[in-house]
Amino acid sequence: MLNNKTVAAISTAYGKGGVAMIRISGDDALNVALRVFKTNAKEIKPRYCYYGSILRDGDIIDDGTMTFFKGPNSYTGEDVCEICCHGGIYATRAVLESVLSSGAVLAGAGEFTRRAYLNGKLTLSRAEAVGHVIDAKTDYQLRLSSSQARGVLSNKISAVREKIISLITRSYATIDYPDEDITDNTREEMVDTLNSVYKDVLSLKKSYKAGRAVSEGIKTAIIGKPNAGKSSLYNLLLGEDVAIVTDIAGTTRDIIENVASIGGVTLNIADTAGIHDTSDVVEKIGVERAKSKIESSELLLCVFDSSTPETEEDVFIIDSIGDKTAIAIINKNDKENMLSREFEIKIKSTFENVIYMSAKDTDSREKLAEIIKNMYELGSIDISNDAVISSARQFSAVSLSLESITQAKDALAYGETNDIICFTLEKALSELDMIDARETSEEIVNEIFSRFCVGK
Amino acid sequence: MLNNKTVAAISTAYGKGGVAMIRISGDDALNVALRVFKTNAKEIKPRYCYYGSILRDGDIIDDGTMTFFKGPNSYTGEDVCEICCHGGIYATRAVLESVLSSGAVLAGAGEFTRRAYLNGKLTLSRAEAVGHVIDAKTDYQLRLSSSQARGVLSNKISAVREKIISLITRSYATIDYPDEDITDNTREEMVDTLNSVYKDVLSLKKSYKAGRAVSEGIKTAIIGKPNAGKSSLYNLLLGEDVAIVTDIAGTTRDIIENVASIGGVTLNIADTAGIHDTSDVVEKIGVERAKSKIESSELLLCVFDSSTPETEEDVFIIDSIGDKTAIAIINKNDKENMLSREFEIKIKSTFENVIYMSAKDTDSREKLAEIIKNMYELGSIDISNDAVISSARQFSAVSLSLESITQAKDALAYGETNDIICFTLEKALSELDMIDARETSEEIVNEIFSRFCVGK
Repeated sequence: MLNNKTVAAISTAYGKGGVAMIRISGDDALNVALRVFKTNAKEIKPRYCYYGSILRDGDIIDDGTMTFFKGPNSYTGEDVCEICCHGGIYATRAVLESVLSSGAVLAGAGEFTRRAYLNGKLTLSRAEAVGHVIDAKTDYQLRLSSSQARGVLSNKISAVREKIISLITRSYATIDYPDEDITDNTREEMVDTLNSVYKDVLSLKKSYKAGRAVSEGIKTAIIGKPNAGKSSLYNLLLGEDVAIVTDIAGTTRDIIENVASIGGVTLNIADTAGIHDTSDVVEKIGVERAKSKIESSELLLCVFDSSTPETEEDVFIIDSIGDKTAIAIINKNDKENMLSREFEIKIKSTFENVIYMSAKDTDSREKLAEIIKNMYELGSIDISNDAVISSARQFSAVSLSLESITQAKDALAYGETNDIICFTLEKALSELDMIDARETSEEIVNEIFSRFCVGK
Repeated sequence: MLNNKTVAAISTAYGKGGVAMIRISGDDALNVALRVFKTNAKEIKPRYCYYGSILRDGDIIDDGTMTFFKGPNSYTGEDVCEICCHGGIYATRAVLESVLSSGAVLAGAGEFTRRAYLNGKLTLSRAEAVGHVIDAKTDYQLRLSSSQARGVLSNKISAVREKIISLITRSYATIDYPDEDITDNTREEMVDTLNSVYKDVLSLKKSYKAGRAVSEGIKTAIIGKPNAGKSSLYNLLLGEDVAIVTDIAGTTRDIIENVASIGGVTLNIADTAGIHDTSDVVEKIGVERAKSKIESSELLLCVFDSSTPETEEDVFIIDSIGDKTAIAIINKNDKENMLSREFEIKIKSTFENVIYMSAKDTDSREKLAEIIKNMYELGSIDISNDAVISSARQFSAVSLSLESITQAKDALAYGETNDIICFTLEKALSELDMIDARETSEEIVNEIFSRFCVGK
């Protein structure tokens, strides 16, 4: 799986900057680096930042720093050298070329992290999360992926699998001694442990609602008749993010249009057609278009104008939402409420969440954020520190594992044979281990032998 | 001149990358960094790379490394902390925001290098050159600016000014003892030193031809009648640079069109109109256009097709070049030469440099490069290690200084009074010192008192 070549690449973003970093990883990293980087230092101590000259074909082309990380105490787990040079496009490329002509080969995309994974420095879910840290567009995305990257999820899974492994080994023990039955004491302990495992995995499974809402985001539609205030709502939702970055030069252009982070939930405002028009989808493009907009969204923000009496269009919207997750936004509550009592009753009986607000009032954002945060169960989660799953792949693994754990619980409760319990638990383990792509069977064997062979 | 606030900025290029660096500089740099960066280390040793968590508002948002540089042993000369985090756009901005809310203010453009200059870590010409390293587009530009950035030019100037200061102090000595005349011995020494200063400054002045050809580049026109081979020549000139970068993903788009580096000389091919047409400037747009193209260029590459007899257009080109620097390229020398003997004589009597070549033959690039390299005096210069001036500002300073040095030589030769010699030398010094914007007068005073007050 690992080619053992020493690889190198520009690790910083492509473009003009003050500083750029060329990273070299592999057995020959230090030799390669020292062919390019000349320092007066007599010895190269790991993790110490040396100043020196950077050469290509015997000519000094730049000056900069080099830091050596002795494997396994490095990002990749291999010997790593990081050369920092001036961040010009040509300069950085020239340094990389010099490194490549000094014995390294160009690293592939994600190769450093791949090597970290293959060398056991990062689990698969942590390695994946590193990519998500880099791709993060909102504060919650950053905190969730950072938490996963530093191993909060992986550690939780490790703890759960320790418990499962201990259950398996205890079951095998009784298989090894077939004449002895499982004692009540052992059985009680096993039931306790299995219940604890069940609780843990159930909680992981449940965390997906919040995790997905943060990482993947919720496809959201803003609907409402013309002049209901859809455009103001849109600006209210996206406004905050835009404001954050205005004082940092050059960053504004990266605000992702149509992505709002509300109470931590990433709203992908899927279809903005009609939002900024006073003539709208319902009025102009017609009923079919409105239906399709509702159909293709997961969350509907339905805006009603309370400053004028309701119309047929408002009623049409209410009748169209079906079983979609939806929030009724009774807008313009700074003005007199002209809606009929019947209409308000209809709204309240249709929508679980109703909010009276003014989309022009920035305080309303907080109120709405609170509702959305609770809808996606983010209120009870510490996104930076709790184990949260966030991808369909992880969800699938956790769901399958939970099923097997439930079967194991039943098997234990109904006094099934140990080999059935073992089989079911091993299944639960290997399903859980899909998250970090662990090869489990051999590990279990080793674990079992290390525990059971003592004195045997 | 220096505000003493602790400043911070993203020092790597803006965009998505594996790693980004946030640099913090100022008295409070370490305190600010440690509010953001949490490590298990008990003490922070300078230049040691620590691994840890990066926090914002109490939440971990990323993990990364921090290196502390204790002033004055840092880039800026102040305390500096460099935090490396994952190179996502949002992630990097979040880390910067955390740093800014922990007591640093956003650094202005070039502020770290400005501080390095103001703190005496870099001379002005070195600080300028750092910018040129980052802007470098060719190998020679990179090597020249890197040489200036690490102080090759500054050191040369320092050496020259030491000599001038020693001359001034010796002259002052005789003013202090007006009864004594300058001894023949002293005078002879002074003449020697002054000759050496003159030689040094003259050589700096002369280096501008090469320095400018590399750094600023030469406005170049390729002219010739249709089908003479202008397009092939253009491709030959630009081809090499393009080839260099093809195997490094994402870099191709930065090849600057119309910039070729030939024998180290940067050719800015100013006007490519007509180059790729078989119908050309002379034929189609007419005589005026051709004249204006010649007029606005510094170097003319005149292409003649030797596979067909010369035409009136060829003669027109020869008659138009006037006193412009030009190279006659007798193209298509792989075919039979159909030019008349008279025409070839006309070419050789008009052009100092004539080359028989084929623009389709890549070896021709070497031959042409050799000619151009010598024309701009790059053959005799080691661009990575010789003191070379490269800007009009530097040239102006060196030229003025050389004039004053010449005057001082004359004054010494004609036995002028010491105060005239001193005055002229001080002028030469302050003119030379414009390059690094040194404040000289006080320094001279200090130097003089330190030498002369001993035992007085």
